[in-house]
Amino acid sequence: MSNWLLPEHLADILPAEARRIEELRRALLDLYRTYGFELVAPPLVEYLDSLLTGNGGDLGLRTCKLVDQLSGRTLGVRPDMTPQVARIDAHLLNREGVTRLCYCGSVLHARPADLLSDRELLQIGAELFGHAGVEADIEIIQLAFESVRRAGVEGARLDLSHPGVVHAIVQADEALAESAEELSVLLSNKDVPGLSELAARLPGLRPDSRKALLALPSLYGGPEVLQRARRELPGLPGIEAALGGLESLLCALPDHEFGIDLADVGSGYGYHSGVVFSIYAEGWHDALVKGGRYDGMGKSFGRARPATGFSLDLRKLSSGLPPPPLARAIRAPWGTEASLVRALQALRQAGEIVVQTLPGQAQRLDEFTVDRELVPDGDTWKVRAI
Amino acid sequence: MSNWLLPEHLADILPAEARRIEELRRALLDLYRTYGFELVAPPLVEYLDSLLTGNGGDLGLRTCKLVDQLSGRTLGVRPDMTPQVARIDAHLLNREGVTRLCYCGSVLHARPADLLSDRELLQIGAELFGHAGVEADIEIIQLAFESVRRAGVEGARLDLSHPGVVHAIVQADEALAESAEELSVLLSNKDVPGLSELAARLPGLRPDSRKALLALPSLYGGPEVLQRARRELPGLPGIEAALGGLESLLCALPDHEFGIDLADVGSGYGYHSGVVFSIYAEGWHDALVKGGRYDGMGKSFGRARPATGFSLDLRKLSSGLPPPPLARAIRAPWGTEASLVRALQALRQAGEIVVQTLPGQAQRLDEFTVDRELVPDGDTWKVRAI
Repeated sequence: MSNWLLPEHLADILPAEARRIEELRRALLDLYRTYGFELVAPPLVEYLDSLLTGNGGDLGLRTCKLVDQLSGRTLGVRPDMTPQVARIDAHLLNREGVTRLCYCGSVLHARPADLLSDRELLQIGAELFGHAGVEADIEIIQLAFESVRRAGVEGARLDLSHPGVVHAIVQADEALAESAEELSVLLSNKDVPGLSELAARLPGLRPDSRKALLALPSLYGGPEVLQRARRELPGLPGIEAALGGLESLLCALPDHEFGIDLADVGSGYGYHSGVVFSIYAEGWHDALVKGGRYDGMGKSFGRARPATGFSLDLRKLSSGLPPPPLARAIRAPWGTEASLVRALQALRQAGEIVVQTLPGQAQRLDEFTVDRELVPDGDTWKVRAI
Repeated sequence: MSNWLLPEHLADILPAEARRIEELRRALLDLYRTYGFELVAPPLVEYLDSLLTGNGGDLGLRTCKLVDQLSGRTLGVRPDMTPQVARIDAHLLNREGVTRLCYCGSVLHARPADLLSDRELLQIGAELFGHAGVEADIEIIQLAFESVRRAGVEGARLDLSHPGVVHAIVQADEALAESAEELSVLLSNKDVPGLSELAARLPGLRPDSRKALLALPSLYGGPEVLQRARRELPGLPGIEAALGGLESLLCALPDHEFGIDLADVGSGYGYHSGVVFSIYAEGWHDALVKGGRYDGMGKSFGRARPATGFSLDLRKLSSGLPPPPLARAIRAPWGTEASLVRALQALRQAGEIVVQTLPGQAQRLDEFTVDRELVPDGDTWKVRAI
């Protein structure tokens, strides 16, 4: 097998694209900083138990495992940084009150999420801990929306959901207890035949549960979905609370257009506990940003903390944007004379890209377009157009 | 075992430190860009065979291994990005002439290099392919030196070496063929008793080889080392070539002070083929930057290419610098009224850090110091000192 072949769903990022991703990284981290989010960097690998703390089984299947040569224990390469950041908030910083944290780093999935996805993501995100009120959700949703706007994404739209709806239906009917996972997959795919088939298979299923399951896939659309949900779903306290949470968010953000999708049960990682959201846009086959509330996680790390946040994959974000523009560069000859060294230094300190041609060499550049050259001008040097 | 414990020699990077590392990353990538180095981002994991292509056994022992769920083959988490970047140059870009590439990413070591080292490094570096002349080495050494200077490191000094010296001695004497690896460890540690003991153990060792091995640990110091080496080492063509290479670099960089250490055989990864160098400074227990020439690597990826470059660990660089200064921030109340939203937006777009206090919440910040607050001022808002 050739040494230069890469495993499937893993890729090299080449010059112009890599630089654009770097620039998106900077723009977004700086945006989060202006909101007071402090940067942290958790490790690439951790004990598997810690990585999966407070998460559903799905994250375990997505995690690459290796053996720690120092302890003999199983380590995992992080498939998601959110639980790591929750651990830092709960245990390491251990602050009272609100903590805002942001991060950017590589994460790895054992299998791609789908045929079009990579296994390595450059995850960037922001998490707000310590405040259970809707104000925290509002700040996070605004920041998520601003993130894609800053990246130049046009026509982004926001979908809201709440896993509390499905959770309340499952909790209220013992017949569903064993099928929660299957149910969540069928709902994500809006698979009505599959849901009918599941309902037919469960002997003790209550009629109102059956009606609710079959209604959920069509409970998506604008804010009117909340009224339809109140008519079509059973009047369980958990459902009331979830619909109320969504309603208060709609009222607090009157300037945004929301879609509501009550069959969407979150990121698929199973740790969300409150309002969840996704941002979609033309040019990306899947959600660009995923986020929501996950108040349960801190407890597994020794300290219960309200939490809400979002993250996105910078590589995926970049892949759907138009090709990045090339930066302009200056060509210069090779040499060690003092006047040339001074000229090079002055140009580079001013931020110019100056590429020296090494003796006898040609070169091709993908990230830059060379439109000027440095030439002798008496005792000194000058830049002229090519 | 507690969920918040991390494996040994792995750590979370907390707010102010994480931001400083981010700023070093930006400053250095931008520096490399002004020299025309194009940014690439190879994947975090690859087939183990590709990762270890053209490398010695040491890199294999340092690599964390895992099984690819898609192919069943063994993958490695990269312990070093240089071979990946050489693969990109040799195979993927496949350009004629000179190619300059830079990169920054996490790498993982199965075991720490020593008791004080971490297992996760944030490797940043620059590599110049396609030019065998000393001009490429000069550009790389100047850029490496400028990297630590930009980071604010004072009194950095540069050590030069050439693995060709030891290589020539081993090649010329069959008695040493089996002991090359042991020899390289003994030389790195300047272990003279160990070297004597090794020489005594090898029956057919030639007297001039024995003399050379025992001389090498003391062949360090200023440029005069080259003259001493010519007297004390055998007159082998490989040694002549190596000393000549070092000499031409000393002549070409008259403004720099060099140390020469002929017992140093490179980064320990066994891929160096020409002049190698390290940068040391007060405050770091080990070399801050390592680099050198490695012309042999491209061939393993299907295309022989001259190559020289360097890299450093941004986390290690940051850990030895003085504590980072805190950024100034503005405190603001929570609210959704249009005038407040406009004031917040204007301040943040101007780059100010504005932290909203959520209702009923206190907060502590490690990365910022809050020295101003946003207060109502008639129909509008103003910033005042606290």
